[in-house]
Amino acid sequence: MKRPHSIYPVYFLKLNMIPKGFIFSTVEASIKNPHRKDLALIYSKVEANMAGTFTTNKVKAAPVRLDMKKIESGKGQAIVINSGNANACTGKRGIKEAKEIIKHIARSLKIKPSFIYICSTGVIGVPIPTEKIIRKIPELIRNMGKSKIEDVAKAIMTTDTFPKIIRRKLLIENKTGTIVGICKGAGMICPDMATMLCFLITDIAVEEKTLDKTLKEAVKMSFNRITVDGCQSTNDTVLIMANGMLGNNLITMKSRSYSSFRKAVHDVTYGLSKLIVKDGEGATKLIEVEVKGAISEKEAEKAAFAIANSNLVKTAIYGNDPNWGRIMAAIGHSDIKIEEEKVDIYFGGVKTVVNGLSAGKEKEAEKILREKEIRLTVDLKLGKSSTKILTCDLTEDYIKTNKAYRT
Amino acid sequence: MKRPHSIYPVYFLKLNMIPKGFIFSTVEASIKNPHRKDLALIYSKVEANMAGTFTTNKVKAAPVRLDMKKIESGKGQAIVINSGNANACTGKRGIKEAKEIIKHIARSLKIKPSFIYICSTGVIGVPIPTEKIIRKIPELIRNMGKSKIEDVAKAIMTTDTFPKIIRRKLLIENKTGTIVGICKGAGMICPDMATMLCFLITDIAVEEKTLDKTLKEAVKMSFNRITVDGCQSTNDTVLIMANGMLGNNLITMKSRSYSSFRKAVHDVTYGLSKLIVKDGEGATKLIEVEVKGAISEKEAEKAAFAIANSNLVKTAIYGNDPNWGRIMAAIGHSDIKIEEEKVDIYFGGVKTVVNGLSAGKEKEAEKILREKEIRLTVDLKLGKSSTKILTCDLTEDYIKTNKAYRT
Repeated sequence: MKRPHSIYPVYFLKLNMIPKGFIFSTVEASIKNPHRKDLALIYSKVEANMAGTFTTNKVKAAPVRLDMKKIESGKGQAIVINSGNANACTGKRGIKEAKEIIKHIARSLKIKPSFIYICSTGVIGVPIPTEKIIRKIPELIRNMGKSKIEDVAKAIMTTDTFPKIIRRKLLIENKTGTIVGICKGAGMICPDMATMLCFLITDIAVEEKTLDKTLKEAVKMSFNRITVDGCQSTNDTVLIMANGMLGNNLITMKSRSYSSFRKAVHDVTYGLSKLIVKDGEGATKLIEVEVKGAISEKEAEKAAFAIANSNLVKTAIYGNDPNWGRIMAAIGHSDIKIEEEKVDIYFGGVKTVVNGLSAGKEKEAEKILREKEIRLTVDLKLGKSSTKILTCDLTEDYIKTNKAYRT
Repeated sequence: MKRPHSIYPVYFLKLNMIPKGFIFSTVEASIKNPHRKDLALIYSKVEANMAGTFTTNKVKAAPVRLDMKKIESGKGQAIVINSGNANACTGKRGIKEAKEIIKHIARSLKIKPSFIYICSTGVIGVPIPTEKIIRKIPELIRNMGKSKIEDVAKAIMTTDTFPKIIRRKLLIENKTGTIVGICKGAGMICPDMATMLCFLITDIAVEEKTLDKTLKEAVKMSFNRITVDGCQSTNDTVLIMANGMLGNNLITMKSRSYSSFRKAVHDVTYGLSKLIVKDGEGATKLIEVEVKGAISEKEAEKAAFAIANSNLVKTAIYGNDPNWGRIMAAIGHSDIKIEEEKVDIYFGGVKTVVNGLSAGKEKEAEKILREKEIRLTVDLKLGKSSTKILTCDLTEDYIKTNKAYRT
């Protein structure tokens, strides 16, 4: 089913930077529906250092299980991605099919199968149409270099309404390195990642352990701090490839350029996670929930996610209703320490609740809620810990999108 | 806002039994909106034994705080209930207002304030219009006996689309005792009770501790096993009054009639909890989620609530889509022990997933989903524990109802 609408137009890219040594390919394999590119390849001309993070859902898709093993080597050279079928809940057969696809690509590319990562997104529980995919591999290989990263970003979309790309340049030893990240999101977005695939590529040379640490920290501060619907996917994968073709000295945790590399990766993942929430299924508003004054970061997070996952809070914001009682109820239900008579709540800059009571500012708060990006701040005034997470509102279009996803 | 529609017609009552010694009154106090009865009184002609259970939300409404203290005495004679305002998040003033209302009623009824319980439901965070209520107390007292329990059930409705009443007769020592329960529900319905008020009255004589134990067990098996939207209220209250006017020997845990009394109370609370879910905001379907083969009851419950609170599962069922992958994803995210390759899933009697894989029965399962009452069974095949909970589907009308609740 087509998404009913989006408030965000296609994300036009002004820049056209690509890290050295990466090429792309996309083809139409008609995996779920015809007339769209649904099979994509990211290829590095040389072996790259790699790191990854994966869904913590106990039900893991076949490609996730394979990639989790491969990533232990810290090496790789290609990522093949399909949309339209998640190859999840497909048992041993799913693993076999994924290996079969990899085998064909490895043969054509003349690289080891262990250097090829596979990611799938789409419907769960339906056998992946391997024949359709294998039939298209010769064309996929032939087209290498003919597609742009934008085409890959489009090919991996499911209910997304726009492709998601973030780029950063980085000056290292007087050479300009590039980091580009693409991702897909939309629904099943929740703590500990989302129905979300994300690929970062860079030509900067980075040592494996450093790459791993940087990625994990960045994911913690970005993709693990967003929620669309509190539902966690079986397929979440974030992969980073650093092929070193910039020719800089290998970045380690001790390098001078480590912190700027780290910041650039954080910027890219944070930017992408924000795009995912903006494009949440049916979303009309981006909501930043900040909880401060908590007695620990864990408690701040619990409260923030309780608010961000409350259907009642999200529908109220959709309806421009500063119904702060629902925020109080969500916090009260979140199993954290709270003293009702201390809580302050702000909609944007409007202090709407003071010491647990209405400040009579509902009119002003309502104006704030008419904006497209909303800050919601809760001050528990009990401690010094805080957190910020991103979410979106809950609308009729979320229901429309999800009631007929498979038709 | 008026609820957009309901698939369930007003619940017509064929019986007209009322326990001896109880009388009722309802008046129009225009607390939120005019032209409806929104203030109600349940009164027992004699002192009654009482028990109660309350929301576990840390943010508790003023009336809940007062009732929780009063119930320690195990005694009471009247319950005053208003809809339109929850008197929650109203601080010390809220407590003062509630006490003021009780004081006026106590004076008119000439009974101790400690014998009067107060319950409120409606908007959170808005001061309760005490003056409007007090002005109507003389009329409320004058009308005693002129209203039926059906009128009370109607007066306490908020977004409910029909009043909820369940009755049971019970033969004790050759005398016919009666238990009648009424409740209101609709939204903010979740484990550990709901935006839900429930009142049970009986003329059967029951000893205090026995009454307390019976009620708590019954609530555990009914109201604590339902969820509409995973949101827990600040005002949940279940109260039972047993005035003993049947004249039977006081029932204790050792009485012969204890088990039949217990069963009758369970029947009433279970019946009411089912009506709450049927009338869930926007609901078109009642869903019973059974998880069996779990290694413990706690794990069965975790999994069942994960399924029942999944927006993706609920929208799929709304759309008649047997999207069992979402059920697998919900269980995998629920932090219980699971072996994907063992899981069986049934829609009604149709075994749709066998050992974690599709059985190719989607067409048959789709037919099941077109019914109005749906059984969903997940067999983890790991242990012997099981649980059943009730929920409803998630529809556009939930959003419509909740985006404009306060307008």
